[in-house]
Amino acid sequence: MRSHTCGELGSQHVGQMVELCGWAQNVRVLSDTLVFVKLRDAYGSVQLLTEHRRMPGFAEQKRQLELLSTDTLISVKGKVAMRPGDTAKGKSSTRDIEILVERVQILNQAKPLPFNPHVKANMPNEEVRLAHRYLDLRRPELQRNIRVRSKATMAIRQFMDDHGFVDIETPLLFKSTPEGAREFLVPTRASPGACYALPQSPQQFKQILMAAGFDRYYQIARCFRDEDLRADRQPEFTQVDMEMSFVTKEDIQQVMERLIQHVWSTVKNIQIDAPFRRMSFAEATRRFGSDKPDTRFGLEIVQIPQLSSETNIVAEALLITGGANIFSAKELTPFLELLRSNWGATGLTNITLLSRWLTNNGSSAGQEPTDRLKEILALLSAKSGDLLFVSERLSHITPANTTLGRLRTLAAKLLQEKGELIIPEDRFEFLWIEDFPLFTCEADSLQSQLSATHHPFTAPVSEDLPLLYSDPAKVRGQHYDLVLNGVELGGGSMRVHDPDVQQYIFEKVLHLSPRVRDSFSHLVAALGHGCPPHGGIALGLDRLIAVLTNSLSLRDVIAFPKSADGRDLFMHSPASASTARLENYGLQVCKNLPISTKEHK
Amino acid sequence: MRSHTCGELGSQHVGQMVELCGWAQNVRVLSDTLVFVKLRDAYGSVQLLTEHRRMPGFAEQKRQLELLSTDTLISVKGKVAMRPGDTAKGKSSTRDIEILVERVQILNQAKPLPFNPHVKANMPNEEVRLAHRYLDLRRPELQRNIRVRSKATMAIRQFMDDHGFVDIETPLLFKSTPEGAREFLVPTRASPGACYALPQSPQQFKQILMAAGFDRYYQIARCFRDEDLRADRQPEFTQVDMEMSFVTKEDIQQVMERLIQHVWSTVKNIQIDAPFRRMSFAEATRRFGSDKPDTRFGLEIVQIPQLSSETNIVAEALLITGGANIFSAKELTPFLELLRSNWGATGLTNITLLSRWLTNNGSSAGQEPTDRLKEILALLSAKSGDLLFVSERLSHITPANTTLGRLRTLAAKLLQEKGELIIPEDRFEFLWIEDFPLFTCEADSLQSQLSATHHPFTAPVSEDLPLLYSDPAKVRGQHYDLVLNGVELGGGSMRVHDPDVQQYIFEKVLHLSPRVRDSFSHLVAALGHGCPPHGGIALGLDRLIAVLTNSLSLRDVIAFPKSADGRDLFMHSPASASTARLENYGLQVCKNLPISTKEHK
Repeated sequence: MRSHTCGELGSQHVGQMVELCGWAQNVRVLSDTLVFVKLRDAYGSVQLLTEHRRMPGFAEQKRQLELLSTDTLISVKGKVAMRPGDTAKGKSSTRDIEILVERVQILNQAKPLPFNPHVKANMPNEEVRLAHRYLDLRRPELQRNIRVRSKATMAIRQFMDDHGFVDIETPLLFKSTPEGAREFLVPTRASPGACYALPQSPQQFKQILMAAGFDRYYQIARCFRDEDLRADRQPEFTQVDMEMSFVTKEDIQQVMERLIQHVWSTVKNIQIDAPFRRMSFAEATRRFGSDKPDTRFGLEIVQIPQLSSETNIVAEALLITGGANIFSAKELTPFLELLRSNWGATGLTNITLLSRWLTNNGSSAGQEPTDRLKEILALLSAKSGDLLFVSERLSHITPANTTLGRLRTLAAKLLQEKGELIIPEDRFEFLWIEDFPLFTCEADSLQSQLSATHHPFTAPVSEDLPLLYSDPAKVRGQHYDLVLNGVELGGGSMRVHDPDVQQYIFEKVLHLSPRVRDSFSHLVAALGHGCPPHGGIALGLDRLIAVLTNSLSLRDVIAFPKSADGRDLFMHSPASASTARLENYGLQVCKNLPISTKEHK
Repeated sequence: MRSHTCGELGSQHVGQMVELCGWAQNVRVLSDTLVFVKLRDAYGSVQLLTEHRRMPGFAEQKRQLELLSTDTLISVKGKVAMRPGDTAKGKSSTRDIEILVERVQILNQAKPLPFNPHVKANMPNEEVRLAHRYLDLRRPELQRNIRVRSKATMAIRQFMDDHGFVDIETPLLFKSTPEGAREFLVPTRASPGACYALPQSPQQFKQILMAAGFDRYYQIARCFRDEDLRADRQPEFTQVDMEMSFVTKEDIQQVMERLIQHVWSTVKNIQIDAPFRRMSFAEATRRFGSDKPDTRFGLEIVQIPQLSSETNIVAEALLITGGANIFSAKELTPFLELLRSNWGATGLTNITLLSRWLTNNGSSAGQEPTDRLKEILALLSAKSGDLLFVSERLSHITPANTTLGRLRTLAAKLLQEKGELIIPEDRFEFLWIEDFPLFTCEADSLQSQLSATHHPFTAPVSEDLPLLYSDPAKVRGQHYDLVLNGVELGGGSMRVHDPDVQQYIFEKVLHLSPRVRDSFSHLVAALGHGCPPHGGIALGLDRLIAVLTNSLSLRDVIAFPKSADGRDLFMHSPASASTARLENYGLQVCKNLPISTKEHK
C-alpha cells in the first residue's frame, strides 16, 4: 500500500514517485489552486503540496481536502521535490523535501476527535485521555515511551540470552495460598470455590527451576497484586526476573551490573561505571533515613546525643545550611505538614523544628537554647540562618523511611525548585543496599513475633546462621536491593536451599500455621531432592522504563494502564459479571454482607 | 563456586585443576581404594575418579560416597586427565577426560527420589511425574525441549525486532464480555460481582494499537481459555501475536514465511522454501476433507456421483489402493469405529464401507454391485483388493473435518505403522488455507442465523463486499490459516477498518444484542477516528515448539503444565478459597445450586 514511510524520506529521494499512507493534519488552503497538508505516520511527517496543475480533478480533490478532519487516514501518490530554500529548516531530512501530489485517496475518514493529541496546549485531563487511549497513544511522548520500552526489553533479552540464561515461561494460573490476601483469585469450574490465583511473582517457580537443573533462568514476567484501590498502583506489572544456581550474591550482582550497563548503553548511549556502590541497610538508614537513598546530593542525617531519657532511642538531626534564609516562613509549610503527618508514625517519639532558634543567632523570640541544644548546634556546626530538624525514634524498629529521611527528600525537591540544588539529568547513581535484617519485629505484636522482611525463602548471611537458632531478630539476610537515584529498581536474594533450615524458619521462627506450612511443602520437597545453592533478583520493568524515559507516572510507559483506582477507562473494566456467569463457578454475590464496610487486610 | 561446567570440559583442559558442581549419579565402588562417580550438570556430565592416593582422609570420603543417594548435589576439586584409551568413546569430548578428585563436598544431600529421572525403563506414569515436576524436568528430553523453546522464542523476537515490529505488552486483566462463556473471571473489590476477565487473545488491543499509530506490533502473549475440563487442553497458552497497518494479506503472509524460515534455520538448521503453497478452504475440504490437511501424502478424496436422491448432497469416496490386502478384517476395526462414531455427525447422511465388494473382484459374498456402484468403481479405477469408503454429506454445511477427512488421517497413521507409507521426519509442508466463508450457518439454527466463522472483526474479501448486503452467507473472509503437516500453527486475517461496515456486521448480519454491541463500542469508536487498514496473525507457540521438538504432547514443551483436567498436580491447584477470601470480593459459594448438574455452555 505504500512505497515508503513518511519518516524515511529525504533529499536523496528527490525526483522519485512515491506512495505514502498516513494521517492528515493541518490542511491549509493557500489559494484556489494550492493546498498544503501535513502527512504523518509512525516514523515522521512530510508536507504534501496539492496544486491544480498536477492533479486531474483538482477542484473535487480540493473540496475533499478542505473538509478533511484531523487524523483522517489518506493515501497519496506524488513526486518528491526539494522545498524552496527559505522554508527548509535543516536537521530532519524530511523537512528538506515536499511531495508534489498527483493523487489523494481517503482510506478512513475520521469523525471529529474527542481531543487533538497533537496540540499540547489543549490537552484534557488524564481521565479523558485514558478513556480514548488510542488517541492519547498518538502523542509523540507516548509513542516514544512505548518504543523505548520495546527497545530496552529487547536489549535485556539479548543480554540474558547472550549470557546463557534460558527464557522459561511460568504459569499465571497459580495456586491460591492461605494467607495471600493480596492475590487475585480466578474461580474454576473444578468445584464451587475452587480457585487459581494470579502470582505476585514467579518466586516459587524459579526456585523449582533451579531444583530442576536449569541453572540460569530468566523471564520477563507479568505479575499481579490486588492492591488497595486507593493505592495508585497498577494491579498488573512486569518484572525482569532471573535466578542462578551455584553462585554467590556477588555473581548475581555482577550480572545485574553488566545488564544495566548494556541497557543504558543501548538505549541512552551512556556508559555506566561498575561495580556499583554497596551500602548496608543500617548505614542507609543512619545517613539517609531511607532504604533507597538518593545519593546524588548530601543533606545527610547526623546522629546526635539523645534528648529524652527513654531507652532504645536514636536521636538524629538534619541540617539545611542557610535553609532559614532560603525558605520563607510560608514556604516551610510543606515541611511542617510532613512533620505533622509523621508525628504519630511508628517509632517516632519526638521531633522539633528548631529553625526559630537558629534564624536569630541561636536564639528565638528571646528564648535561649538549652545547654543540650547548644551542644547539638556545636556538634553540627549549625549557625544562624540554618534550618535544623531533630528527631527521636525507637531504635529497634527500623522503618524503611524515617521522618528525617522523608524530610531530606522533600528538602532536596524544594531546593531544586528554588535552584539552590542542581542535579544533572544524566547523573545515575546506582547503589546496592545490603544486609537487611532477615526478620522484622511486627510493630503491633505483643510477643515480638517476627515476620520475614522480604520473603521467607531468603537465606541468612552465612556467619549469622548460628544466630538463627539463638537470636533470630539479629540475623542479617542475604538480600540486596538495587537503587537508582532514590528509586528502588528491584531486589533479590540468595535463597535457602537446605530443606531443614527452610523448615526451621517456617516453623520455629515465623511460627507459620501447619496449613500455611503445608502450602509450601512442595518447595521443601524440591529442596530435599538435590536443589543447588541459588539466588536471583527481579527488576521492576515499568519503573526501569519510567527512569529511562524520564516519565513521572508508570501510566506513561504502559500501553494500556489501569487508572489509579484500578479501572480500565477505555474498555470499561472491571464490569459486573452476570449471575449466570458467576453460577458457572458455583458462586453468587453475598446476600447479607455489607461489603462496603469490610476493610481489606 | 565452580571454575567450569561439566559439559564444557574436554581434552584441552587436561592438566588443569578445576572446581565443579553438580548432581552425583552412578556411584561405583571398584575397590577399597577406588570409587567412580558420574557428575552431571545442565551442560553435560564427567566421570569423577576418587582414589586413596590423591585424597586426604579418603576412608571418610569413601564412606560418604558409598552412601551418596542419586542426585545429591556435590562440589568437587580435581585435576583433568585423559581417560585410558580403551574407555574413551569419542564424539562428546567430556567422554575423553576424567577428573582425578582431591576434594569432595556435599552441597545438598538428596533424600531418596520418588523416581529416578535418569532411568528411562522405570519411568512412572505422567501423573506421578507431574506431581514431582522438578524431577521430571531433569529428564534430558524435557531439558532439551525447554531450551529449544527459549532458543526458538529468542529467534522469533530477534526476527520481529529486526523487521521493525514493536514489542508491546497488553493487559491480562481484561474486560469480561457479555457472551464470553469461555473467559476466566477475576473478581475485584470494586463492587460485589465486578470482575476483570483474562483475555483469550490480545485481538482487541492489537487492533487498538493500529488505531493508535503503531503500525508494526508484536507480542509473545499469554492467553487463557476456560476449557471444558475434559478437553485435554491447557487453560493458559502462549501465542506469537502480531499486527500490521497499511498492508495486504500477502504482506503479512510474506513476513510469516520469512519468520518461519528464520526459526527453522536457527533451531533446526533446515532451509524452508517460500512462498508457501496456497489452498482455498473449499479445495482443502474437497480434496482432503480437512481445513488443515496433511499434504505430505496422497490418499485424496474424490467427488463421485450422488448415491441418494436428496438435494444439497455431496458424495465423496476415499480409495486405499490394495487396502483390503494390507489390513486384516480385524485391523479394520479402528476404521469401523471411526465410522460408527461419526455416523450421526453434522452433515453426514450416509456412508458405506464397500471393502467386501472389492476384496472379491468387485463382488461380496456373491452379491453383485449395483450399476451405480460399478460406475463409481470405474471412475476411481478401483480394483480387487482395494479398500473404498464412500460418504454423503450436506453440502451447505462445511465442517472443519469431514468423515472421510478423518478416515484419511487414520489411514495414513495405520499405513505408516505398517510401513506401507513412509513420511520422512524432516519433511515440512507449510500451507496457507484461505477463502474461508466469513460467516457460518449455525447448525441448530432454524432461521439460518449466521455466526462469525473466526471472529466478527475479519474483513470480507473485497470483491465479495457487495454480497455482505445481499447474501452474507456467500461472503468469503480475508482469513488465512497457517498449516504444517496437518497441524494448524496459527491463523490471522485482515480486519474490518471501516466503522460502518463493522457496525453493519454486528447489527445486521450477526444480530448481536445491543448489550453485546455496546461492549464493542470502544473498538468501533477507534475505527472511526482514523484507524488504518490492518491485519495480523497469531501462531500457537506451544504447538510450534511441539513440532520443532517432535513432541507428542504440549505438556512436554511447557515447564509447568496443567494436567489434562486443568490441575497443577505439583502445586495442588486450583485450591479451595476460604469463605473470608471470597467475601473480600463480595462473593460466596452458591447455597442452593446443584452445580454438578449445570452444564457449561
